[in-house]
Amino acid sequence: MKHISYINDMEAWKDSFEFYHSIKVRFSETDMFGHLNNTVPFAYFEEARIEFFNHLGFMQKWTEKSSSTIPVVANQQCDYLKQVYFSEQLKIYVKINQVGNSSMDIHYMASAQDGAICFVGRSTIVQMSTLTGKGEPWSDYMKQIIETSVNIHCMS
Amino acid sequence: MKHISYINDMEAWKDSFEFYHSIKVRFSETDMFGHLNNTVPFAYFEEARIEFFNHLGFMQKWTEKSSSTIPVVANQQCDYLKQVYFSEQLKIYVKINQVGNSSMDIHYMASAQDGAICFVGRSTIVQMSTLTGKGEPWSDYMKQIIETSVNIHCMS
Amino acid sequence: MKHISYINDMEAWKDSFEFYHSIKVRFSETDMFGHLNNTVPFAYFEEARIEFFNHLGFMQKWTEKSSSTIPVVANQQCDYLKQVYFSEQLKIYVKINQVGNSSMDIHYMASAQDGAICFVGRSTIVQMSTLTGKGEPWSDYMKQIIETSVNIHCMS
Amino acid sequence: MKHISYINDMEAWKDSFEFYHSIKVRFSETDMFGHLNNTVPFAYFEEARIEFFNHLGFMQKWTEKSSSTIPVVANQQCDYLKQVYFSEQLKIYVKINQVGNSSMDIHYMASAQDGAICFVGRSTIVQMSTLTGKGEPWSDYMKQIIETSVNIHCMS
Repeated sequence: MKHISYINDMEAWKDSFEFYHSIKVRFSETDMFGHLNNTVPFAYFEEARIEFFNHLGFMQKWTEKSSSTIPVVANQQCDYLKQVYFSEQLKIYVKINQVGNSSMDIHYMASAQDGAICFVGRSTIVQMSTLTGKGEPWSDYMKQIIETSVNIHCMS
Repeated sequence: MKHISYINDMEAWKDSFEFYHSIKVRFSETDMFGHLNNTVPFAYFEEARIEFFNHLGFMQKWTEKSSSTIPVVANQQCDYLKQVYFSEQLKIYVKINQVGNSSMDIHYMASAQDGAICFVGRSTIVQMSTLTGKGEPWSDYMKQIIETSVNIHCMS
Repeated sequence: MKHISYINDMEAWKDSFEFYHSIKVRFSETDMFGHLNNTVPFAYFEEARIEFFNHLGFMQKWTEKSSSTIPVVANQQCDYLKQVYFSEQLKIYVKINQVGNSSMDIHYMASAQDGAICFVGRSTIVQMSTLTGKGEPWSDYMKQIIETSVNIHCMS
Repeated sequence: MKHISYINDMEAWKDSFEFYHSIKVRFSETDMFGHLNNTVPFAYFEEARIEFFNHLGFMQKWTEKSSSTIPVVANQQCDYLKQVYFSEQLKIYVKINQVGNSSMDIHYMASAQDGAICFVGRSTIVQMSTLTGKGEPWSDYMKQIIETSVNIHCMS
């Protein structure tokens, strides 16, 4: 397998995921080349990431009308390893790879039903203040949740 | 051509449009059957309708943060007459067909470069109050703009 | 509830559905008005319809590379009854309402977790020959499956 | 501006683009946070890249039914520098950054009407054989076109 900058040891990396969200490829997500269009994995990443944040207890806060912080994607990438087709059932694994002051680095791995990895990716998520437009440091409460999650995933 | 419930006389109907918005079919909008996916014309309708509302001077008001009314789609439909393919250049014609107290009936016609009609449609748009969730009657100012538009399109 | 042309008796109509497919509203499917964008229900309809066709045993045939027939949408419509928001879990009910020579009329009903109906719709699906571009009559085998389905749904 | 791995000297990089494709942000492309959803720039990249390939004279070959090669995205990334809003008019600049045996590295830069850079990105595109599923080396004819393009863009 070719080198991917954010993966050192593929086997260890694969084993570091625990949480996943299942999706099934929609017909409207294919393109005229007969496979999943390259723009769609980012919608899957977002969906799986939000399910993961829900699981951690984050997401609700961010979607309250009164919230003055929102999570924004600062950058992201996807490496496509295998073509994906209509109606395939994928597991989108998600983990927090690293935590900064107001950001985190999220990793994704999409695997097919036979276990083959179809595509992988990563995003930097920043907690942004809607008042200043700048990064808003994680609260102690969130830091605790995040660190617990990272420990679970890195130390298991 | 088969009967379409909202079109009485196809030739007169075609002639009743003036405003159009041009779009070009994106690769990501095709599907594995090799043509434009059936869900996409509604995004084209929305884009063309908003350009039309901009042209009439409506849209800005509705997208101001302080606005307490928004336009919502109450119902819509599309009749697909000809398959559409990647990179085709379409004209999406839009007109106000009828005006109610807080609603209007919008018609659409998409034509290809050779003039063939590819799909047609209609939407009922309601001006909704974000405070009550109910229809908000058109102001006199808006009514005047709408009626001028309808007259132009019906009487020309 | 306002009149919807393809629904005579709302209570009887609601009771006539059996099959449903569950979906959860994605973040990327909302728009800046804070609710589900009006173009998305048609992607849900397509997804639920295909799951229904799978269930009946149709879909596989149509997506084989050697198939010379594909299902195309000839027309469709949606009536939006209640705003839908991010992360709502919807049941998209699907049924065959009527069968023609090479077409069928499909009905949809989307209900929220509290049972409220959020939007309803219908599509005319035509089995098209990819060789002639024209409608291809249902085979006896398909007719039998369709009629069984319609009977089940109408007579139960 | 923060460091972006594929940009050494931002000013020189900005000046290295010539070709651009204009797009206008659709309403259906916003999300409930009120800005352009993070998944959409990849659709813009694809649209601009294809317009660029058209301009170079590539794309037609790849979308012919008889073609045994298609361009696939092997990996891609986006760095979001400024929030983008509904109805903004963007220029999506595209260039070939580097050429391999059967692949190329494409760079993108999206700028707003005031000249501010909103997001940047890159994709590795591979010419894939649909028969073998493997990379298909560029023909001499394509190599010549690509190299001319790279020279134009790097030497100007």
